[in-house]
Amino acid sequence: MPMTIVDRTAAFCREHQLLAAGETVVVAVSGGADSVCLLDVLRRLASALNLKLHVAHLNHQLRGDAAAADADFVRDLARRWQLPVTIGQADVAQLARQQKKSVEDAARAARYDFLRQVARKIHAEKIAVGHNADDQSETVLLHFLRGAGLDGLRGMLPRTPQPDGGAPLIRPLLEIPRVEIEAYCRAQNLPFRTDATNRDENFTRNRVRHSLLPLLETFNPNIRAALRRTAALMQADFPLVERETDRAWQFVVTTESPQAVIFNRDDWQSLPAGVQARVLRRAVAQLLGGAADVEYRHIMAALSFLKEKDTGAEMHLPHGLTLRVAYAGFTLATAGYRPPLPDMPLLTAETAVPLAVPGETPLPGGWSVRAVLLDAATVSAEMLRRARPWQAFFDADCVGQPSLRPRRPGDTFAPFGLDGRRQRLKKFMIDRKIPTPLRAKIPLLVSA
Amino acid sequence: MPMTIVDRTAAFCREHQLLAAGETVVVAVSGGADSVCLLDVLRRLASALNLKLHVAHLNHQLRGDAAAADADFVRDLARRWQLPVTIGQADVAQLARQQKKSVEDAARAARYDFLRQVARKIHAEKIAVGHNADDQSETVLLHFLRGAGLDGLRGMLPRTPQPDGGAPLIRPLLEIPRVEIEAYCRAQNLPFRTDATNRDENFTRNRVRHSLLPLLETFNPNIRAALRRTAALMQADFPLVERETDRAWQFVVTTESPQAVIFNRDDWQSLPAGVQARVLRRAVAQLLGGAADVEYRHIMAALSFLKEKDTGAEMHLPHGLTLRVAYAGFTLATAGYRPPLPDMPLLTAETAVPLAVPGETPLPGGWSVRAVLLDAATVSAEMLRRARPWQAFFDADCVGQPSLRPRRPGDTFAPFGLDGRRQRLKKFMIDRKIPTPLRAKIPLLVSA
Repeated sequence: MPMTIVDRTAAFCREHQLLAAGETVVVAVSGGADSVCLLDVLRRLASALNLKLHVAHLNHQLRGDAAAADADFVRDLARRWQLPVTIGQADVAQLARQQKKSVEDAARAARYDFLRQVARKIHAEKIAVGHNADDQSETVLLHFLRGAGLDGLRGMLPRTPQPDGGAPLIRPLLEIPRVEIEAYCRAQNLPFRTDATNRDENFTRNRVRHSLLPLLETFNPNIRAALRRTAALMQADFPLVERETDRAWQFVVTTESPQAVIFNRDDWQSLPAGVQARVLRRAVAQLLGGAADVEYRHIMAALSFLKEKDTGAEMHLPHGLTLRVAYAGFTLATAGYRPPLPDMPLLTAETAVPLAVPGETPLPGGWSVRAVLLDAATVSAEMLRRARPWQAFFDADCVGQPSLRPRRPGDTFAPFGLDGRRQRLKKFMIDRKIPTPLRAKIPLLVSA
Repeated sequence: MPMTIVDRTAAFCREHQLLAAGETVVVAVSGGADSVCLLDVLRRLASALNLKLHVAHLNHQLRGDAAAADADFVRDLARRWQLPVTIGQADVAQLARQQKKSVEDAARAARYDFLRQVARKIHAEKIAVGHNADDQSETVLLHFLRGAGLDGLRGMLPRTPQPDGGAPLIRPLLEIPRVEIEAYCRAQNLPFRTDATNRDENFTRNRVRHSLLPLLETFNPNIRAALRRTAALMQADFPLVERETDRAWQFVVTTESPQAVIFNRDDWQSLPAGVQARVLRRAVAQLLGGAADVEYRHIMAALSFLKEKDTGAEMHLPHGLTLRVAYAGFTLATAGYRPPLPDMPLLTAETAVPLAVPGETPLPGGWSVRAVLLDAATVSAEMLRRARPWQAFFDADCVGQPSLRPRRPGDTFAPFGLDGRRQRLKKFMIDRKIPTPLRAKIPLLVSA
């Protein structure tokens, strides 16, 4: 049995390429059975792989004397095994208050910060943590209870890269059940602290461990292995989805800036919904700098919005983000984003331009208006109904000599369908959500 | 509230394209609240969509008078609503005994067979069943308890195609919770049978419904919606994985026959593990004709086998399937499959061919043996250990003038490591699982 754990861990490390010869590894040791077992197993693998191990322990200062005793225990163990050790201190209770986090979340954040610091200081290539197979089952179950997808149901990874490119976290014991780790410690006469600060312990996880999992075992005696199988299946499928998201980003995103991501709408429609959701989430992360996230329901609402809404529609998302649909694409932008002027005819002067009827009247930016006189007998109701966006039909006898000019204060018009009642143009433009900088530049066709 | 269900069902049908104008729809009606609600909602949508509804009910003959009363109830309801109805009968208890299935499984199989028959007979385009949002949550949870992956966690689909290309199953109420369906029935004064034969009810599902889900609600009050979210996320990602599996099959499968599927090994290695598993599972399904399946653990074992094993290795899978590794590829084959001769040097005549030493000796099929004389001082132990598969080292002084010939009855040789003891070549070839047709053709290097 004891050798089995060492061999299985070695095989797991090979399979997932967790360790390479000659590497320096920070080993996180709380003093509990998992981390003491981890340290012992790595110690046995160290000579064959020429690993340099460095023990790291953070005193969370949460349990007074007991926490100090944990730290002393880890220091003594490292000394006995002739390994270098760094013991850190953090006032987690105070951090929790400052950061408005739960004590568990603050402890976890402080611990990983500490491990990264130690790794940087000693130029370590890896940070090893003692998560075991039961931790993994519990993690998958916790994600499932929240309604996770492929990404969350992967659970913990054998190897988690650091966002800053620093030493990745590795989890060599991720396939060893807790009961085997405890048996190993007993068989090897390894000392460990039963009350050592537990990594991710919190109320929910404890209830999952002590009441939910035993109930689930009455449905499936192998539920823990089943949960890990789900994680393995998700981990096996994830790279495919990730690759497709990368690929989709390349062809669907036309412009990226810190303020906005602009998408091609036609390409967007061809993406599977799962990839659309991931591309959108990636754009959100990029614009918010990873500082905040947008919930599932907002992403789903954004996807339906993009499916249904036409040019000009806007949707507000949390953290000041706005989704705007344009002619050929759509934009996800931060609050500070000012879109460039759209590709449409805009007037640069305030004077009126007479419209040549029939004929062609040039406008700024290469646009022009072409007026054609039609025989009333040839104009069908069908033609009127099917008018294209840039096309309009007028009664030449009523219009007289029309001209094009920008709006003026107090402009009114009589919209079709309002029985001749006049409406203020300003109100109409606001109702249609025409952006303010455009309102004074849109050409109006006016007649005496 | 009542209108809400009708509107939401209509929107759900549009979103998933469940119904098209003018279609004939078989509506499965057990007589319970779900199916009565389904029939009423479809009745209200029928005129706008010009649907022709046909009620179908199977008497499972499991509960005697109550079952007959259910059938009468459904017949009366259809008559009252002026809808055509087909009532079928099946002795499910007997079917369960014959098919060695649980009564629930036999009932389900009989029910779907019956619905398909009715659909064929009346040329229906769709078969509508009454699964609701809680059924979906329970299904996702049941799959999860078994350790499902992406495929299983999709739960029930809004639309399930029939394997034979017949009328697909549709589930218009899949997003309506049970409590709303019951409220709708009360509000509309719809009669229903509370003990009507329940579709998928079995012991495990009942325990999930009545004890597991209430416990999970203490972890997440919205657990039912969370389970459906998981299903939706999986459904959104599934098409991508399915498309990749199709694509992978096209380039990785070099030959398909009813007896064997042959894969290119280099292309195989480039596939993500999740796609490898699906391609292999598809090959299994194709060879077994969908009649049987191979468990997850066998598929996983096959994947590791393919990762590690070299040419010539064989692995047995259930149902007589064998996986064989060859030089450039590997084969998944049924028990009856006889592989073509492999791409290796084989002798076509029985006479011995003297080996040119040093020199090159041609063999059939374009192969040749090249013999080189080396100075013993230049031959290191490292060279001997690293000999390539087609390379061998001999002591030229001992071997004398060697020749190549096929085996002859009674041939023996002294394998390395057996202290000079001789072994029968035939036994050796059998132990190494060399296929019979090859045994007499493999060139042997013999010396006096």
